[in-house]
Order: sequence, then C-alpha cells, then structure tokens
Amino acid sequence: MSWTLPPPDADFGPATLPYGVLAPDDGPPRVVTRIGDQVIDLAALASALGSDLVEVFASDSLNPLMGLGPDGWRAARAWLSAAVADESARDDLEAAARPAGSEPMLLPIAVADYVDFYASEHHASNVGQLFRPSDPSLPPNWRHLPIGYHGRAGTVVVSGTDVIRPQGQRRPDPQAPPVFGSSVRLDIECEVGFVVGAASTLGRPVTLAEAADHIFGVVLLNDWSARDIQAWEYVPLGPFLGKSFATSISAWVVPFEALDGARVPGPDQEPPVLPYLAGTSDERFGLDLRLEILVNGQVVSSPHYTDLYWSPAQMLAHMTVNGASLRVGDLFGSGTVSGADRSMFGSLLELTWNGAEPIRFADGSTRGFLEDGDIVTLRGWSPGAVGRVTLGEVNGRVVANEA
Amino acid sequence: MSWTLPPPDADFGPATLPYGVLAPDDGPPRVVTRIGDQVIDLAALASALGSDLVEVFASDSLNPLMGLGPDGWRAARAWLSAAVADESARDDLEAAARPAGSEPMLLPIAVADYVDFYASEHHASNVGQLFRPSDPSLPPNWRHLPIGYHGRAGTVVVSGTDVIRPQGQRRPDPQAPPVFGSSVRLDIECEVGFVVGAASTLGRPVTLAEAADHIFGVVLLNDWSARDIQAWEYVPLGPFLGKSFATSISAWVVPFEALDGARVPGPDQEPPVLPYLAGTSDERFGLDLRLEILVNGQVVSSPHYTDLYWSPAQMLAHMTVNGASLRVGDLFGSGTVSGADRSMFGSLLELTWNGAEPIRFADGSTRGFLEDGDIVTLRGWSPGAVGRVTLGEVNGRVVANEA
Repeated sequence: MSWTLPPPDADFGPATLPYGVLAPDDGPPRVVTRIGDQVIDLAALASALGSDLVEVFASDSLNPLMGLGPDGWRAARAWLSAAVADESARDDLEAAARPAGSEPMLLPIAVADYVDFYASEHHASNVGQLFRPSDPSLPPNWRHLPIGYHGRAGTVVVSGTDVIRPQGQRRPDPQAPPVFGSSVRLDIECEVGFVVGAASTLGRPVTLAEAADHIFGVVLLNDWSARDIQAWEYVPLGPFLGKSFATSISAWVVPFEALDGARVPGPDQEPPVLPYLAGTSDERFGLDLRLEILVNGQVVSSPHYTDLYWSPAQMLAHMTVNGASLRVGDLFGSGTVSGADRSMFGSLLELTWNGAEPIRFADGSTRGFLEDGDIVTLRGWSPGAVGRVTLGEVNGRVVANEA
Repeated sequence: MSWTLPPPDADFGPATLPYGVLAPDDGPPRVVTRIGDQVIDLAALASALGSDLVEVFASDSLNPLMGLGPDGWRAARAWLSAAVADESARDDLEAAARPAGSEPMLLPIAVADYVDFYASEHHASNVGQLFRPSDPSLPPNWRHLPIGYHGRAGTVVVSGTDVIRPQGQRRPDPQAPPVFGSSVRLDIECEVGFVVGAASTLGRPVTLAEAADHIFGVVLLNDWSARDIQAWEYVPLGPFLGKSFATSISAWVVPFEALDGARVPGPDQEPPVLPYLAGTSDERFGLDLRLEILVNGQVVSSPHYTDLYWSPAQMLAHMTVNGASLRVGDLFGSGTVSGADRSMFGSLLELTWNGAEPIRFADGSTRGFLEDGDIVTLRGWSPGAVGRVTLGEVNGRVVANEA
C-alpha cells in the first residue's frame, strides 16, 4: 500500500496528531498517534528516525511524555509534525502503522487528582431549577468563582469500558425513608477534560498567564451520573457515589497546542471577577469545540464549548489559588457543556427535563434516562485555523449490575 | 548499649509496631518501624534474619508491603513481632536501630484517592448550627448514610510539613461582593485516617464483613480547613479550596491488626440503617482511640473515637456500594472526631464557636482561629487489650504565604 495523508478536513488529519496508548497483540503497550484510520507506533517511528523520544514513547502511559514539560511537548509535536510531512519518512511511517480499532487502547494517563467543574451557566441554571426549585437558579457564588469539586481518580476509565449500573440509596418519596437498589435515573454529562502535564509547587498559585504551560492536552469526558443517588446524598458535602462509579475519557489526548487555532476570546463576565480570574479576554480564552452526544447511534444534542462561562485557564488558576499543587496526570473536567436550548443541552437530565419529556428516537422508542444496553458516544472537533482537529470519541455501554 | 524493650504501657511498645518510611542521611529511603525512641530499619533487620521481606521493606513507600494483601500483612506483622520478642535476635535489632527524630520521615504511602467522611454526629450537628442556622442541625440524609466526599490526594503531606496559609475568596459581608486574600479563619480537624491496602474490583461492592481485609492501617489526620473560603464556596458541590491546600497525616501507619484489641461494638443506630450498612454491632465495630489536640504545646481538647456514629467498615461499605473500586493507597478520613461537650470537640470552629468564644492559653493569649507560627499537634493511643497502642502524632506549623 502506498501511504497517503488524509486531507486537512478529514478526521485525524495532520492538524490533530493526538497521543494514546495501544496495547498491541504482539508486545508491550506503547504510545501511538492516529492519522486517518491508522495508528502509528511512535516508539517504532522514533527508533526508525533516530529520535531520542523512543524511551518516553515506549511506555504504558503518557506520563513520561508529559514529564518532559511544555518545551518537551512542543518539541515532540514539532518532531512528529515534521516526520508526518516529510516525504522521505513515508516508508518509516507506513512501517509503524496499524489499522485503528483492531487492538485495544488503554487509559492514556495515570490519573493523579480528578476535579470536575461546573462552568456552563446554562447547565448550572437548569440543574438549579430541577434540584432546588425554591432557590434562585444560580447559587450566589456562581458568577464569582468557577465552582468545582474533587471526583474519584481511580474510577476514570477509557472509552469502550462498560459502565455497570450503580446501586445505592435514593429517596423517591420525600416523606418516606430512603430505599436501596439500582439507580433508575442513570445519566451522562458531556464534558471536555483537560490533562495537566506539568506539576506546580505547593503554596504557589498558577496564574492565568501560566495556565497554558501546565495543560498538556484535551480529552472528551463522560461524567456518568446517577441522578437519584446524587439528589439524596449531595447535601451538604457535594456529589459522591452518584458520580464515583465511573468517569469515561477518550483514548486519545489531543495536544493543547493543536487547539491554538481553536482559541476564542473569553466571554464578558458580569459582575467583574476578582483580579486573579480577570486577565484579558484573550488570557481567559475559550475554545471553539463542536460536540455531539449520541445515544444508540442517534445524535440527541450538539453542545458548543464556546457557550461556557468559565475558561480552562480560569479553572486552573482558581484550583491552585489556595496554594494547592498540581501533579503530572491531574485531570479536570469542564462540567457539563450545555447551550441555551434543548438542541445543545449536555445531559439527559436537561434534555428530558428530569425524565418528564422523554427523547423520542427514530424507531419510536423513548428514553428518560439510560436503560441497560444503551450505548452513549461523545464526539467532537474543532474547525481549527489550519485544518480540522478531531477529539477522540468516548464510548460506553450501560450494563446491568450483578444484583 | 544493651537493647531493652519498652514496657507494654509505654509509647510505641511491642503492641504497636507501626510502619513508616525513613529518609536516612546515608542511603535510600526504606521502611522502618518504631520501638520506644528508636526506629528500626526493617530492610536491614529482614536481611540479617534471612526474611524474604527485604524487598518490600527496601522501598520509599508502604505500597509494596500493602500489595502483599491481608495475609501478607499478617505474616509480616507476625514475623516482626516474633523478631522483637526473640532474645537471640536482639543484636540484629540493635544493629538496625537508629534514634527516632534524627532523620526525616517521608509520606508513608503513595496516596491513590482520598475521601473524607463526616461520621461524628456531634461535629455534624455543631457545623449545621454554625453554617446553616435556619435548617435542622443534621441534614435529612445524615442518619441514613455516612456522608463523604473526595478530597485532594496530591496535597496530603506528612507530619512536620509546614502548612502555608491559603488565599482565596471569602465573603465576610453577605450583602457585599466577595473579597480576596489570606484566610482569616484557618482551622484544623482532628481525624483518624484509614489506609486501604487491598484493591477491589470495579462493580463489586465491599461488604461490611469484608471491610477489615481491605484496611491496612490507621493514621492520625489533620484536615486543615479555611472556614471562610469553605463557607463561600461549598454550595452546592461541597468543600474544595477550603480544604485542598493541605491534609497532614502521621508518619507512622499503625497496622489495623494492632487495633484488634481496641474494637468496641458499634453504636445503636436509629432509624435502622439499610441492610448493606447494618450487619451486627460487632461487624460495624468502633475503635477505642483516645485523641488529643495541642495548640502550641497546650492540650485544647481530648476527643474520643468511640463517640463516632458511623464505623470504619460502614464507611468502606458505603464508599463502594455503587461499584466504585478501591486501590492500594486509598485513604479515607473519619471526619472530625467530636464528642458531646467542648472538652471533646475536634475543631477550633466548634471549640471557639466560630471564633465567638476564643480559647484562652496559660500565658494569657487567646485564639479564635490559627495565627501564623502556631503549631498544631494531634496525638492518640488506645489502651488496647494486650498493651498500649500508640498512634503516630501529626504536627504542623502554620506559615504565612508569600502574598
């Protein structure tokens, strides 16, 4: 076969060059990239081209690569982009290529701490109306700080992992005691996740201007949520078992640098935020990412990441302003990406208005919340300034628990 | 010198035999135990006695030891107890000994996920009265489930680490916008932490009866808390930056087995809890642990762990009932241990009733919350059935931030 690069507007064209970890049938795990419908063994390519990156690519996670720091990430991407563009390296590229999808991909990072934010005004307002109907739809702190909380790092799983329906306590009748059983309000949250690749020092906040040097890349993230468990447990210390059973991320981490052309000015914020969150509109940049949620193959919503109120740099600056340090492998999620109307809501909770207005599918079936066997897929891309950038998709199938 | 064991009622007598990690001046870190005022290099002792435990002790964390699983932990403790009791091994013990306190101790475990519970009824009720005066003092779910939330694993630090006063948003005037600056309500929480040493499988809850086989050991834990930051941020998703700047644990992990003689029947729980939390009173055992909080060397409170409503086994069963898996190195805290009256409250928030009734010290000075330079120490022990068991102390000094 004669290797040809996909065109700039194709999925996983030369503007994306994501990183992932392949578990090949014939050897130990290694770091790979994806071009079109091929995965490229980067350890093999680096070896063939005499690059000293062989060692960081011969790994079962991206953590050694991340450990090179931001200059190292840029150098690695520059090397890879050059290799892909170099006609004389075409044979080496072809020799390192395998068809995508034929061998399993592993969780790409060893997750250190996982934090989930709540950065969409539309989502926070919708949830407020549904969970706290007697209060204002946004809590009083919402426009002053990007609300966030820690989630369970140990149950972050890679796309393709089945999600076992959680059991737990819920209280369907607010006048009666809680009952125990499987969640009957299993939901998804369509989010963008940011992978921290450069650590910071305990006691030294990371500023808005420094944030991009700490963010290695971007994943799609499905924050599976058992709404009935969550609603009963979350006062006063926040979500716990309603979320901790599984969080799925894409197998592909798109380098943050690949999204340089996707940056858009951050939204105007009223009332003005405190100085550590303010900066210029460019410093608190948003990202032009177009997302899609599919349930059993049918698109049910198309959120747009530019609708978020709080930017990635603001989330990172806030997360560290108290002196908390970052580690290589920290992951933070944007929170559900929801737009102004139902065609852009990022959860079934909102799309079905807490189950009251089910989604109707082409085959006539309906869904309030997820049923066993349902498959949820998140996908996304950016038009980009120099070619389409494709986010890795996140897939997960709901399976019954053993009870 | 001729080595003599301390008597059974002394600190770190032969009933304790904790594990920690020493960073010696003359070599790589290694696992040690403590007997009286000596630390014992366990890699050296195992080598001298021909034990195959040398490898797990020649490590910079207890994670390899924990990885042996519960049978391995019991075997290691049996080997160590026998070696300590064996007159003929006395020279080897002496050769492996160094004076405690002369070389630094490291964080003993690589922390996987950190969860903090809220298991003291007195504490939850006090906080409810102070933070939510218009609501019932206990939230409606409190007696039905052990409330918990995830904290930041990456900022768990070992005893002796300075704690940098956090900055952040707070809103001293509820009618005005928030302000930014250093916390002026810096507090501590006196807790017992449980170290998970055996992993579990995603989707398979750990039962009450299985819980003890997953708990490797116990630490004292100081959950430093910036009350002003916490009060402004925590609705609706729980504490975040008010806690994430630092959590201190003791350098010594006391094997859970050492506390077999400290078990006491769990409290009667009304209303009855759901079956996965019920078991027998013995299955939901409490622990007879006597704790002390010292500020600048003066005892300000003496909490008693038996006052907790929710037991360690119940916390573990609850944490996994949704199918969330455990990893080696997971850490969960009991939440503040508070008793019924002020002599047994586990935080300054409660001891000073939110600063309104300051603590008065012997030298005439007073404290509402912590000032820069203050040193807080937590210590604890159990009378035990076969001799006193000493918990490692947690020490931390508050230092000003750079702002």
